Amino acid sequence: MIKTDILIIGAGPTGLFTVFEAGLLKLKCHLIDALPQPGGQCSEIYPKKPIYDIPAFPEILAGDLVTNLLEQIKPFEAGYTMGERAETLDKQEDGSFIVTTNKGTKHQAPVVVIAGGLGSFEPRKPPIENILDFEDKGVAYMIKDPEVYRDKKVIIAGGGDSALDWAIFLADVASEVSLVHRRNEFRGALDSVEKAAELAKAGKIKLFTEAEVKKLYGDDHLEAVVVKHNDPEKGESYVEVDSFIPLFGLSPKLGPIGDWGLEIEKNAIKVNNAKDYQTNIPGVFAIGDVNTYEGKLKLILSGFHEAAVMCQFAYKLINPGKRYVMKYTTVGGVEGFDGTKKEAKKEVVQSIS
Amino acid sequence: MIKTDILIIGAGPTGLFTVFEAGLLKLKCHLIDALPQPGGQCSEIYPKKPIYDIPAFPEILAGDLVTNLLEQIKPFEAGYTMGERAETLDKQEDGSFIVTTNKGTKHQAPVVVIAGGLGSFEPRKPPIENILDFEDKGVAYMIKDPEVYRDKKVIIAGGGDSALDWAIFLADVASEVSLVHRRNEFRGALDSVEKAAELAKAGKIKLFTEAEVKKLYGDDHLEAVVVKHNDPEKGESYVEVDSFIPLFGLSPKLGPIGDWGLEIEKNAIKVNNAKDYQTNIPGVFAIGDVNTYEGKLKLILSGFHEAAVMCQFAYKLINPGKRYVMKYTTVGGVEGFDGTKKEAKKEVVQSIS
Repeated sequence: MIKTDILIIGAGPTGLFTVFEAGLLKLKCHLIDALPQPGGQCSEIYPKKPIYDIPAFPEILAGDLVTNLLEQIKPFEAGYTMGERAETLDKQEDGSFIVTTNKGTKHQAPVVVIAGGLGSFEPRKPPIENILDFEDKGVAYMIKDPEVYRDKKVIIAGGGDSALDWAIFLADVASEVSLVHRRNEFRGALDSVEKAAELAKAGKIKLFTEAEVKKLYGDDHLEAVVVKHNDPEKGESYVEVDSFIPLFGLSPKLGPIGDWGLEIEKNAIKVNNAKDYQTNIPGVFAIGDVNTYEGKLKLILSGFHEAAVMCQFAYKLINPGKRYVMKYTTVGGVEGFDGTKKEAKKEVVQSIS
Repeated sequence: MIKTDILIIGAGPTGLFTVFEAGLLKLKCHLIDALPQPGGQCSEIYPKKPIYDIPAFPEILAGDLVTNLLEQIKPFEAGYTMGERAETLDKQEDGSFIVTTNKGTKHQAPVVVIAGGLGSFEPRKPPIENILDFEDKGVAYMIKDPEVYRDKKVIIAGGGDSALDWAIFLADVASEVSLVHRRNEFRGALDSVEKAAELAKAGKIKLFTEAEVKKLYGDDHLEAVVVKHNDPEKGESYVEVDSFIPLFGLSPKLGPIGDWGLEIEKNAIKVNNAKDYQTNIPGVFAIGDVNTYEGKLKLILSGFHEAAVMCQFAYKLINPGKRYVMKYTTVGGVEGFDGTKKEAKKEVVQSIS
């Protein structure tokens, strides 16, 4: 059982910054996220795209925003349960909560904060009859560790940046890389498209365009796929592969959180913004894009504010009756749980004459 | 008469960021601030001190925060009325407001936003009987343009960073610089204290410690001051000067805004945070440290959030009935009023084979 002060569900920018605000109040955090790495959408969907409305950054790449946040929260030594989805929330007799993931990992905390963004990003699955039978047996919807594919035969489906980038990357890792796309045209960053074209010409990527994977074969594990061409004259190709990786994008779903008894409005969690961003379950907060209230803006900068406010109230819940006097970081510095201390240079008091 | 969409009172970080959020909504802003330069406290009080709790900046100097914000808002060409204090607010028949400064400059806008921080910073004045008679006639409490003192005789009073830094700076500008301090010890950055000590030793700053300016003489303009030493044996010194600059720090005062009919609580302006940070006067908003509501945190990052939310509601007030669809800057880019456009690189759509 993992125990912490504040259990944060969602390791996007809002969840990450919560670690910092909690840390200033001497509260420890643990984060759960279905994605393999922190940063949420910023890391998974658009790490190389610029954001222009983060205050005091005229422009920052989403990936750099995450990198900066990770550096900022480093002194507060958060725990991470990554690549697992929070499935159940159980209130305990002592008022604390136990959150269990889809892999059975259990976490206990007096305060739970849902910073789940638009929800957990679920891969879009192609409508192939027996695809569920091969999940984790050759079929994967995202690549966590490319080394798994070393010297294997891989077929990737998709026509966007993910499909292009992974086909390019795996061309040097796998023994055989095929790329299947329904259309003839790919949509991605210019250099990715060009690089993939080069590799296809050099025979390092086998290209199937205007085609789709339609059937999967194998006993215990995937052994081959059937690629069906749009052009009836071309018919079907039988391709021996160890892995089939459809990369058709992610679609956000509130997921199991929707069954936790929280008040939901328009696929978001209703909170009391007038006060503390608490949900209808006392001790459970919702911040960032996952929440809704009158006047709600789904901006990263609003998630930061909500995190700061929420932590103040979490402090009061966790330390009832204890008075906390807020100190500005410029005045009080930042004292990490790792023993580090950052603070403004002290003034000197000195006689001149 | 200066006319604008949103009139912002206070050019601190919150007021500056308002220009950006308004600009995304195609609303023009004009700022009024009693200080000579934008940035509020960050520029005036602690430009060289680090702040640790601005999201995604593990550390940033307050002065750099202001520089970044000014760069971020540059495309939106805000107007500035600096060094003037907003004195009166008059509601017009057409629903707009006219705000007049202490120097008589008039501004008209349908929406007024008070982002006044802790209030306008008023200099602490020494208790010298006839000091008011010499204001703007040799007595100044802050230095706006050091060139005014070229080849003049100047006496500065104070023992902190401002007094030290200006004495050092003016040593090269004025014909004579004296520095008076009640105590023997100065409190400031190490290098300022050392530099001032050097200049004093070299005779470029004349030092009066354990002493105070007690009397001012002159007809139309200041001509001399009397410095009284704590040590009775040293008695009084008569010093001929053109200017006396007491730098005893600034103390924040809500000031004339307190008489505008706004609901005030604990020296702050009450707003409806559940919605739009509007005050009891419709069309007048208050954001940042100047406002108060249940759960209010006086953090710069909260001011940023309040600015974003407030601008959405200002848009609805200014464009009644018009529907606005928020676009993320990553998707829609940022189109400046100066004709500039920043946007994420477009994806290409291209055939590979």
